[in-house]
Amino acid sequence: MTTETARIEAFSDGVFTIAITLLVLEIKIPAPGSEPLSVQLWKQWPSYVSFAISFAFIGIMWINHHRLFTYIKQSNNSLLLLNLLLLLGVTSVPFPTAVLAAHLGKTDQRAAAVLYSGTYFFIAIFFNLLWRYAASDKWKLLAAEVDRTAVHHITRQYAFGPLLYLACLGLCWVSVPASIAANAALACFFALPPQRALLRRR
Amino acid sequence: MTTETARIEAFSDGVFTIAITLLVLEIKIPAPGSEPLSVQLWKQWPSYVSFAISFAFIGIMWINHHRLFTYIKQSNNSLLLLNLLLLLGVTSVPFPTAVLAAHLGKTDQRAAAVLYSGTYFFIAIFFNLLWRYAASDKWKLLAAEVDRTAVHHITRQYAFGPLLYLACLGLCWVSVPASIAANAALACFFALPPQRALLRRR
Amino acid sequence: MTTETARIEAFSDGVFTIAITLLVLEIKIPAPGSEPLSVQLWKQWPSYVSFAISFAFIGIMWINHHRLFTYIKQSNNSLLLLNLLLLLGVTSVPFPTAVLAAHLGKTDQRAAAVLYSGTYFFIAIFFNLLWRYAASDKWKLLAAEVDRTAVHHITRQYAFGPLLYLACLGLCWVSVPASIAANAALACFFALPPQRALLRRR
Amino acid sequence: MTTETARIEAFSDGVFTIAITLLVLEIKIPAPGSEPLSVQLWKQWPSYVSFAISFAFIGIMWINHHRLFTYIKQSNNSLLLLNLLLLLGVTSVPFPTAVLAAHLGKTDQRAAAVLYSGTYFFIAIFFNLLWRYAASDKWKLLAAEVDRTAVHHITRQYAFGPLLYLACLGLCWVSVPASIAANAALACFFALPPQRALLRRR
Repeated sequence: MTTETARIEAFSDGVFTIAITLLVLEIKIPAPGSEPLSVQLWKQWPSYVSFAISFAFIGIMWINHHRLFTYIKQSNNSLLLLNLLLLLGVTSVPFPTAVLAAHLGKTDQRAAAVLYSGTYFFIAIFFNLLWRYAASDKWKLLAAEVDRTAVHHITRQYAFGPLLYLACLGLCWVSVPASIAANAALACFFALPPQRALLRRR
Repeated sequence: MTTETARIEAFSDGVFTIAITLLVLEIKIPAPGSEPLSVQLWKQWPSYVSFAISFAFIGIMWINHHRLFTYIKQSNNSLLLLNLLLLLGVTSVPFPTAVLAAHLGKTDQRAAAVLYSGTYFFIAIFFNLLWRYAASDKWKLLAAEVDRTAVHHITRQYAFGPLLYLACLGLCWVSVPASIAANAALACFFALPPQRALLRRR
Repeated sequence: MTTETARIEAFSDGVFTIAITLLVLEIKIPAPGSEPLSVQLWKQWPSYVSFAISFAFIGIMWINHHRLFTYIKQSNNSLLLLNLLLLLGVTSVPFPTAVLAAHLGKTDQRAAAVLYSGTYFFIAIFFNLLWRYAASDKWKLLAAEVDRTAVHHITRQYAFGPLLYLACLGLCWVSVPASIAANAALACFFALPPQRALLRRR
Repeated sequence: MTTETARIEAFSDGVFTIAITLLVLEIKIPAPGSEPLSVQLWKQWPSYVSFAISFAFIGIMWINHHRLFTYIKQSNNSLLLLNLLLLLGVTSVPFPTAVLAAHLGKTDQRAAAVLYSGTYFFIAIFFNLLWRYAASDKWKLLAAEVDRTAVHHITRQYAFGPLLYLACLGLCWVSVPASIAANAALACFFALPPQRALLRRR
C-alpha cells in the first residue's frame, strides 16, 4: 500500500507545480498605447504583489504537504478524496489571485481581498482535515515509527493555520493592505521548519 | 514489457494533472466596471459549478484509470492508441466546461449541457474500450495473478458508465439543471471504491 | 551516464504532455450572442480538426521519441541540444494549430496550412537529426546490444518523415483540404509499430 | 536526506518544463482581417525572437540547474527557499517575454528590453546564491566525493552570469537589438559544457 501514497504524492506534486507556474498567465501584457510602457508596467503592481504572495503560498503549501507525507505511509479512499478536495483549492488559486490583481487599489478591493483570503482560509481547513484524518483512525495511515506526542505536536501547529487565515479574512474589513500584508507574512511563517524533529531517532 | 505500462501511466498522469489544473484558466476575471465585484462574482456561479464538476470528473477518472493499471501489466501498440484516444477526451474537458460556464442559465444552456454530457459519455465509452481490450485477448495484458471472475466483475461495474452518462445526456432535454446535478452525482458515484478486492491474496 | 538519458526522457515527456494538453486552450469559447450556440459550435469545426490532428501528431511523436530512447543509452551535450531543438518544435505546435483553426475554410487558409505543415516538416527534420546523431559517432550513444543492421533499418524508416511532410507542405498549393487530410493520414502512419524487432534477442 | 534533493529536483524540473511550454501561449493568433495572414505572421517576428530566446534561456537554465544537483546531495530549509526564489524567477519568464514580443520594434522597446534583461539578471543572481549557499557551509550539502578546487572552479564560472546579464541590461540604453542579440548569445554560451570534469575519478 506504500505505493499508494507515492501515487498521491506524484499527482499532488504535479498539481502544485502546474498551479504555481500558471499564475504568471494571469498577469496582463500591456499593449502599445497612450501611456509609456514603464508607466503601464508600474501601474500593474497589484499583479506582481498578488503573483508573489500566491507563488509563496503554493510553494510553502507544497513543502508542508510533503512534510505530512513523510509521516503518512498508508492511503485509503477517504484520504484520496480529502487530498483531491485540498487540490481543488490549490488549483483554484490563480482565480482569486487574478481577481485581486485586477481590483487591488480600486473601488472593489475589499471584495477581491475577501475572495483571496477566503480561498486561503478554506485551503487551510482542507489541509487540516487531511492531516487530522491521516493522524486519527488508530494511526493506521502513519508510519509505524512516528511517535504519538510528535503527531499531537504537529496537529497543534497546523491547527493555527485556519485561525490565522480567518484573522486575515477579518482584517479585510479593517484594512485591505493590512490583510494582504498579513497573508504575505503567513506564507513566510509557514515556511519555517517545524521546531521539533518528529520522527524518533532510530 | 512492464516498464511499458509505467511509461503509459506516467504520460497519462501528466495529462490528467495538467487538464485538471488548466480548468481554472477558463474562469473569467471580472473587470472593474459598472457592477460591484461581489455581484459580478456571484453571477459567475455557472463557472464555479462547471469547474467543480469537471474537477471531480477528471480527478475520479484519474483514480479509476490508476485502478485499471494495477491490473494491466503488459502493453501493446493498440492499448497505447486506445489510451491516447481516452486522453484526447480528457484533455478536451476544459472546452465543454468553459462552454457550459458561459451558457448555463442562459438561452442556449441546453446545447451547452448536451456538449458537456456528450463529452463525458464519449470519455466513458473510451474508458470501457480501453479496459475491455486490456481484459480480453486471452489475458495477456493483465497481471498473471488477477482472477477471471474479478475481471468480469470490474467489466460489469464499468459498463454502467456509458449507460449512466447517456442518461445524463438524455436528461438535458428534460431539464438542464437535473442533467448537471446527475453529472455531479455520477462523479461522486464513481469515487466509491470497488466492492470486492480484485487481486487474489497471495 | 545512463541516468543522463533518464533525465532527458523525463524532461521531454513533460514537454510532450504539457504541449498536448495546452492545445485545448486555443479553442475559442463561443459567447452568448446573435447565433444559436449549436450553430456557433458547428462553425468551429476547423478548431476541432486542427486540435485532433495536432493531438495525434504530438501523441505519436511522443511514442516515437520513446522508441528512440529504448536504443539510446548514453547522452552528451550535443544530444541534449538537439533534443532541446526538437522540443522547441513540439512546444510551438499549439501556435500553428490555433492559426489553422482561425483560418481554415477562410480566405487565408493556404498561408495557415503552409505554417501548419511547415512546422511539422521542421519537427520531422529535427527528429531525424536527433536520431542520426545518436546512431552515428561509432555507436557510443546506443545500447551495446543494438545490432547495426537494425539501426540502419530504423534510420531508413524515419528518413521518410521529412519527405512525407514536405509532400504535405507542397500539397498546400494544390489543395488545402488534401494537405490537412494528408497530415492526418501521416499521424496515423507513424503510429504503426516498426516492422522488425530492433533489439537482438538475448 | 538524499531523497530530499530528489524532491527538489522533481519539483524544479516540473516548473522548468511547464514554464518552457507555456511560452507559446503568449504568441498572438492573427485573426482574419484587413491584412493577409502571411503579412500578419511576418509582422509578429518579435514574438518568435523572444519566444526562441526565452525557450533557450529556460532550457539552458534547466541543464545548468541539473548540473548543480549532481553535486548537491543534501538539502535543508534554506536551500529549499533559495530554490523556490530561483523558480519564482523562472516561472515569471513568460511575462517579460510577452512584453518584449508586444513592444520590440515599437516606441517603447527600451522599457520592454530592460524588463527582459532585468529578469534574466535577477535569475542569474538567484542561481548564484543557490550555488554559493550549497557550496559553502563546510560542504555539508555537497556530495562527499566532490573536490574543493573543482567547486571553486564552478563557482568562478557561474559568477560571470550576473555580470554578463548586467552587461546585457546596460546594452539596452545603447542599442535594444544589440541587447537582445547579446541575450541570445549568452543562452548559447551557457549551453557549453563545463571545461573541467568536476567529480574526482574514483
